[in-house]
Amino acid sequence: MTKGADLAARNDADIDRVANALADAARRVITPFFRRHDLTTDNKLSTGFDPVTEADRAAEAAMREILARERPADAILGEEFGAKDGTSGLTWVLDPIDGTRGFLSGTPTWGVLIAVNDAQGPFYGLIDQPYIGERFIGDAAGARFVGPKGAGALATRAPRALAQAIVFTTFPEVGSLVERNAFHAVASRARLTRYGMDCYAYALVAAGQVDLVIEAGLQPYDIQAPIALIEAAGGLVTDWQGGPAHEGGRVVAAANTAIHAEALALLREHCG
Amino acid sequence: MTKGADLAARNDADIDRVANALADAARRVITPFFRRHDLTTDNKLSTGFDPVTEADRAAEAAMREILARERPADAILGEEFGAKDGTSGLTWVLDPIDGTRGFLSGTPTWGVLIAVNDAQGPFYGLIDQPYIGERFIGDAAGARFVGPKGAGALATRAPRALAQAIVFTTFPEVGSLVERNAFHAVASRARLTRYGMDCYAYALVAAGQVDLVIEAGLQPYDIQAPIALIEAAGGLVTDWQGGPAHEGGRVVAAANTAIHAEALALLREHCG
Repeated sequence: MTKGADLAARNDADIDRVANALADAARRVITPFFRRHDLTTDNKLSTGFDPVTEADRAAEAAMREILARERPADAILGEEFGAKDGTSGLTWVLDPIDGTRGFLSGTPTWGVLIAVNDAQGPFYGLIDQPYIGERFIGDAAGARFVGPKGAGALATRAPRALAQAIVFTTFPEVGSLVERNAFHAVASRARLTRYGMDCYAYALVAAGQVDLVIEAGLQPYDIQAPIALIEAAGGLVTDWQGGPAHEGGRVVAAANTAIHAEALALLREHCG
Repeated sequence: MTKGADLAARNDADIDRVANALADAARRVITPFFRRHDLTTDNKLSTGFDPVTEADRAAEAAMREILARERPADAILGEEFGAKDGTSGLTWVLDPIDGTRGFLSGTPTWGVLIAVNDAQGPFYGLIDQPYIGERFIGDAAGARFVGPKGAGALATRAPRALAQAIVFTTFPEVGSLVERNAFHAVASRARLTRYGMDCYAYALVAAGQVDLVIEAGLQPYDIQAPIALIEAAGGLVTDWQGGPAHEGGRVVAAANTAIHAEALALLREHCG
């Protein structure tokens, strides 16, 4: 089968329709919980701080309900309720609230992440920020956004030297000490380093605002939507060795191949 | 004169009307520049990175034009165009884009800051985030907000132990090494530390989402709007010794006196 035939069989327009319906449902469910003062939280991990909110669970349930009706043959991998098998060869990858610490702090930096992958990896990615009312989408048709000030196409930044680049990660600790040192080897050579934006940082790479996002310890559902979005906007996302990033772990998202190569050389030096 | 008479003479309703007109004008001027790819920037300081945008200057000019017409007797202190004398005893303190590094990175964390002070300090504070379309105001009439999901009153969080608290600062470096160590003495005892939110972090204290914001090296125009806003919402803002913060420098903004005392004890230990 040719790639064209694959795409036709895949019906990307229907995937986009259903993904937007999922994101709309997640918005409706999550928004009333955001900045509520009686939020129920508990710690998923015995070590560290990884709160799960009622909103997180309710939003994933709402999205799974739509998929059961609209795309019953597709598999699902969700942050909250795990894996469901399918027969189509397509998998929906859902993270209803990526950035729960940001959510609990009231920052509009968390997002709803929706990706669809096949055997080659994620080919559809959506990042939604319900409070701002902003949605970023990337697929074979291109990269685009709708926000409070209008809608349009997305394109990553043109190449510039690392010394002129803006680098993001969510926590200055990054991960292990080795990972932290590797990140700071890149960041210390950049023009500007910023923190705390959760998945919104990846949307800013697609939007041509940020050159690099470098993170470690990611899950597949944290990164598959950013991968498809950023690739559709002209960038690339790999692990710190230059290999595929869709299984998570150590990730570098770059606006273009030039800045990617410059970052990768430094990351490899520290995590070879 | 009694305090009531002072307030009557001051005409807080007119101040609120004019402040909202300034913020509206700043929104109109700044929004078209946000996330533009050809943004003109230059470095104000020979050391470090402190870009000034065209938007910054144009917005302050637009606000000063309104003040010249509507409040000609009041003094002005602006980030971009400095001080203008007045005869009323009131001073408008303007920072058209607080968080220029966030602005240049595309994050909706920067804000328009407008404060009004008299001999006792700032009594009116407004933080506006034009991209989100969100405005936070505090004065003698209380603390309130209007945002994309509605409007309402603001109130800071009830006391909780530092071990349960959320602490913000913009950069992990904070300031000097001593200032950095003092910040981390507080942050390391907190439940969660977050970075990168610029002036939006102060709005989140007023909104009851965040317990503490601790920063150093601030200018008067960076902090006067947050002071009036947070005080109106039930919190307090001082320097690291517990004294007035409206001249800037080292600042701690707290949701309540209990968490303020706990933070101050640690900050004083490191910066006595």
